[in-house]
Amino acid sequence: MKYLVNLEYDGSELNGYATQPNHNTVQDNVEAVLSKIFKVNVKTFGASRTDARVHARDQYFSFESEKEIDVIGIKRALNAMTKPAINVKSVKEIADEFNPRYDVVDKEYHYLIMKEYDPFMRKYAYFHKYNLDIAKMKAATSAIIGTHDFTSFCNVNTDVVDKVRTVYDLKVIEEGNLLKIIIRGNGFLYNMVRIIAGVLIDCGSNKLDCADVRQMILAKNRKLASKTMPPEGLYLMKINY
Amino acid sequence: MKYLVNLEYDGSELNGYATQPNHNTVQDNVEAVLSKIFKVNVKTFGASRTDARVHARDQYFSFESEKEIDVIGIKRALNAMTKPAINVKSVKEIADEFNPRYDVVDKEYHYLIMKEYDPFMRKYAYFHKYNLDIAKMKAATSAIIGTHDFTSFCNVNTDVVDKVRTVYDLKVIEEGNLLKIIIRGNGFLYNMVRIIAGVLIDCGSNKLDCADVRQMILAKNRKLASKTMPPEGLYLMKINY
Repeated sequence: MKYLVNLEYDGSELNGYATQPNHNTVQDNVEAVLSKIFKVNVKTFGASRTDARVHARDQYFSFESEKEIDVIGIKRALNAMTKPAINVKSVKEIADEFNPRYDVVDKEYHYLIMKEYDPFMRKYAYFHKYNLDIAKMKAATSAIIGTHDFTSFCNVNTDVVDKVRTVYDLKVIEEGNLLKIIIRGNGFLYNMVRIIAGVLIDCGSNKLDCADVRQMILAKNRKLASKTMPPEGLYLMKINY
Repeated sequence: MKYLVNLEYDGSELNGYATQPNHNTVQDNVEAVLSKIFKVNVKTFGASRTDARVHARDQYFSFESEKEIDVIGIKRALNAMTKPAINVKSVKEIADEFNPRYDVVDKEYHYLIMKEYDPFMRKYAYFHKYNLDIAKMKAATSAIIGTHDFTSFCNVNTDVVDKVRTVYDLKVIEEGNLLKIIIRGNGFLYNMVRIIAGVLIDCGSNKLDCADVRQMILAKNRKLASKTMPPEGLYLMKINY
């Protein structure tokens, strides 16, 4: 039997999604718990990696088991036994051929910036000390939307060869004390959203304009793009299959 | 010169407002920082104590200094040097006779309950597993509003003798996934808001009704009242002078 689990997590005290030697990851935690529930070693396959301190409101993983346990029981046991920072939203049976990573149609990420420092949000949004020109940030989105080779917006420590991705939608909206960068695409390279957030912040700070961003993408050189923004502002918000 | 500081803090990683031997409190932190800023030992006088893991959106303390530093400079230095969980909203000069504790006219607290478990809110609201009958919680507020001897709603570990307090207003409102208990009064006994939250939750769980709550108050016996709800749901929201 193959199961698909939909979960969310507050990443602020976690070392990211994928397994790490120190075990303080979502994957390590859910695999340890599933292995207890099924009384056999369970391996999981995640939809999308997230870095340390990055959050997820919509993440998926699959796992297989010879033993069948009803999905409500698995959900309840997972929520009782995983870390409080992790919440399982649903568990369902899924076809054997389903692949939670390769069957993704598109994904949406949010990057949150707080305008005034709010101590309650310090692990949930990036604080930018200086005023941002939001109109300039919005104007720069047109340079990023579309199908491009995003080499300039990818951490150099990657094994991925094909760096062409399609950004379907990129918006900058204000909501109270928060500025939200909302991006949806068919796939994202390592640190791509956090680098795009850095590019848009540089546009809002009058350091770059839309033409610079176009040049930056065409150059296919990570060194020419803005810095990677910190993880606390990033949320994996939606995975569409 | 006497100064009044208005601040807010995320209490989730703090051991409360008032000084403790382990120093992980708001008072210990701000006094250490002010002592560095003024290069002399500074003692502060807080408006209201809060327990470990309790939050404050509106807290005050005063301190005196022979040396004068402009208030903008003090605010900036405090925010640069205190823990990130603490945010100073304003610093102003105040008359010598002002007492941040005794001059309080009334205070407002919120107690937040989440209906569905949200991992992002686990340190910022109390999760109640079972459905609550909100109409019954609202009905019970009339037994608590007014001037009463609140002995039954006070932690027994207190030196306070006069336990008569006036609750001006007590409301239960729904806001998305949150249930908010909003209470305003001229003063609050040790754990009083968290015990009132417990009483209202017991009403919403059909364990108590409005008449029981009246009897509970008249009995002046802590043992007859509900348990003290956990600290993470409690916010000191407003101090009025």
